[in-house]
Amino acid sequence: MKTINVALLGFGTVGRGAYDVLNSDSRVIEKNYGLKVKVKKILEINENAIKASGLPKKLFTGDYNEILKDDSIAIVAEMMGGLEPAHTFMMQALKAGKSVVSSNKAAIAAFLPELKKTAKKNKVMLNYEASVCGAIPVLTSIKDNLLVNEFVEIRGIVNGTSNFILTQMAENNMEYAAALKLAQDLGFAEKDPTADVEGIDSANKICILADLAMDHYEAPMEIKRKGITKLSMADLEDAKKKGCKIKLIAKAVATDKGVKLSVKPELVDEYDYLYDVDYEFNGISLKTKYADEIFLSGRGAGSLPTGSAIAGDILNIATRL
Amino acid sequence: MKTINVALLGFGTVGRGAYDVLNSDSRVIEKNYGLKVKVKKILEINENAIKASGLPKKLFTGDYNEILKDDSIAIVAEMMGGLEPAHTFMMQALKAGKSVVSSNKAAIAAFLPELKKTAKKNKVMLNYEASVCGAIPVLTSIKDNLLVNEFVEIRGIVNGTSNFILTQMAENNMEYAAALKLAQDLGFAEKDPTADVEGIDSANKICILADLAMDHYEAPMEIKRKGITKLSMADLEDAKKKGCKIKLIAKAVATDKGVKLSVKPELVDEYDYLYDVDYEFNGISLKTKYADEIFLSGRGAGSLPTGSAIAGDILNIATRL
Repeated sequence: MKTINVALLGFGTVGRGAYDVLNSDSRVIEKNYGLKVKVKKILEINENAIKASGLPKKLFTGDYNEILKDDSIAIVAEMMGGLEPAHTFMMQALKAGKSVVSSNKAAIAAFLPELKKTAKKNKVMLNYEASVCGAIPVLTSIKDNLLVNEFVEIRGIVNGTSNFILTQMAENNMEYAAALKLAQDLGFAEKDPTADVEGIDSANKICILADLAMDHYEAPMEIKRKGITKLSMADLEDAKKKGCKIKLIAKAVATDKGVKLSVKPELVDEYDYLYDVDYEFNGISLKTKYADEIFLSGRGAGSLPTGSAIAGDILNIATRL
Repeated sequence: MKTINVALLGFGTVGRGAYDVLNSDSRVIEKNYGLKVKVKKILEINENAIKASGLPKKLFTGDYNEILKDDSIAIVAEMMGGLEPAHTFMMQALKAGKSVVSSNKAAIAAFLPELKKTAKKNKVMLNYEASVCGAIPVLTSIKDNLLVNEFVEIRGIVNGTSNFILTQMAENNMEYAAALKLAQDLGFAEKDPTADVEGIDSANKICILADLAMDHYEAPMEIKRKGITKLSMADLEDAKKKGCKIKLIAKAVATDKGVKLSVKPELVDEYDYLYDVDYEFNGISLKTKYADEIFLSGRGAGSLPTGSAIAGDILNIATRL
């Protein structure tokens, strides 16, 4: 049986999840795909994380060159987060003839044209399913089946943190600050929640979706956006009286004047697929010319869900090698 | 630019839809996939259908051997429906070294092990996304991303006709016979609705899903099933009083004693993703070990939606040739 060697960059929440899925499910993978995936190296310099992992120390390295120079490693999975050095590491891997998988929406969104061009030039693959809505296979659905269609509109609740806060405000009569604190206490929001509540994370995701489905790239920082920090319980009450909810909607619409991207709080009525996407869940509606409206929903984050998306992307490449 | 030649078997509703998607969207396909898809031959003997098509007569043939012997045709898309000759034609194409795409759930479900084995032996591909829930990319999502997961449960409303009837009975106070007649008048039900209302069509689809996701094949005729013909308005009223709806649920559950398949009317409460899948729409919930629950919904039938799924499958193969 063929063995595909991979390297993981970063061993935080997602890295751990990807490792666990690839290892615990190795028999499932062998049966379903007819090959073995071996994690050969993990780039991680945090000594505590390495110790806490319970994995052999020799699996880890702090020197990325060790991975780049190892020709037996065909796929590099980047799960470090942040723009740098993630961006540089992905570029180096592609140039070294390795396919790249990433869950890093910020780096993918910011450098997508350059990354895609470099992958093409070096005849390797670039998959980033895990960067948009974790376990929901939205990019795979688009790329592997729906791209025969013209996409008319993409609308999604693509940030679990802000959706959790809005749901708490509407359902449990909380003001924004209290709902944010609850989200932080439960681990759904980071200490600095700016990227989530100001729509920056959602902008990264709609950037990636519009690029793939509509061949329209717009740098995430250029996307018109408005967050949820100014919303009050009264706003949500008003929406409820109209039979609606307020949701943070990331949107890409094909118009006569080109594709328009936006991220902002919007009224959503009960006939909308997105109406029932509550708490930390994500949902995406894809409107296409021929396939009509398709809706996907599920968990947009989390160690194992996102790790399984990384693993799925690795296998998707492995079967084509 | 590379051109992939395909043959269409059957030029009914789905065949026409596939042809239209492949032709009208040829520029979209060239841009997104970097190749051309050419419909080289259409197998159809219905003279009226050929005349009504408005397409050149030389595109059509009544002799399948013409397609089989044409080595320039790499992919055969079967959209004839029924078990025979569809099954024989697919087997012959695979043995002739052609990849096969099919929307024919009855033939795929009945002959899946033989078709898969033959495709593997002849090193060609077999795609049947269009056979389960039309435009909803559920098989692609499973095959290309989620198969790293163990599947715990699959539950779906996978037959639009029966769901339309049940929705009319519940929402518009109709008895079964009247709702069936309305469905027939609107083109959502065939003159002989047996396969839809007795759960045979749903059994075909859960057979195909369980085979792909759970590596469990059970012939559709062996699957325990119960249709909707015995349900009355009173049953649906009772469900409503409990805050529930009755839906025809196709289900595959992984248990200690193996995978259990069933098709039967079930109570669905409002916290269930399937609760809001009404009228002719389809919805599928996939529960996996790592990715948690993922839900997909959309149109499960129709000329262009199903045709676009066929086109997606063709492109999926074309990019791997």
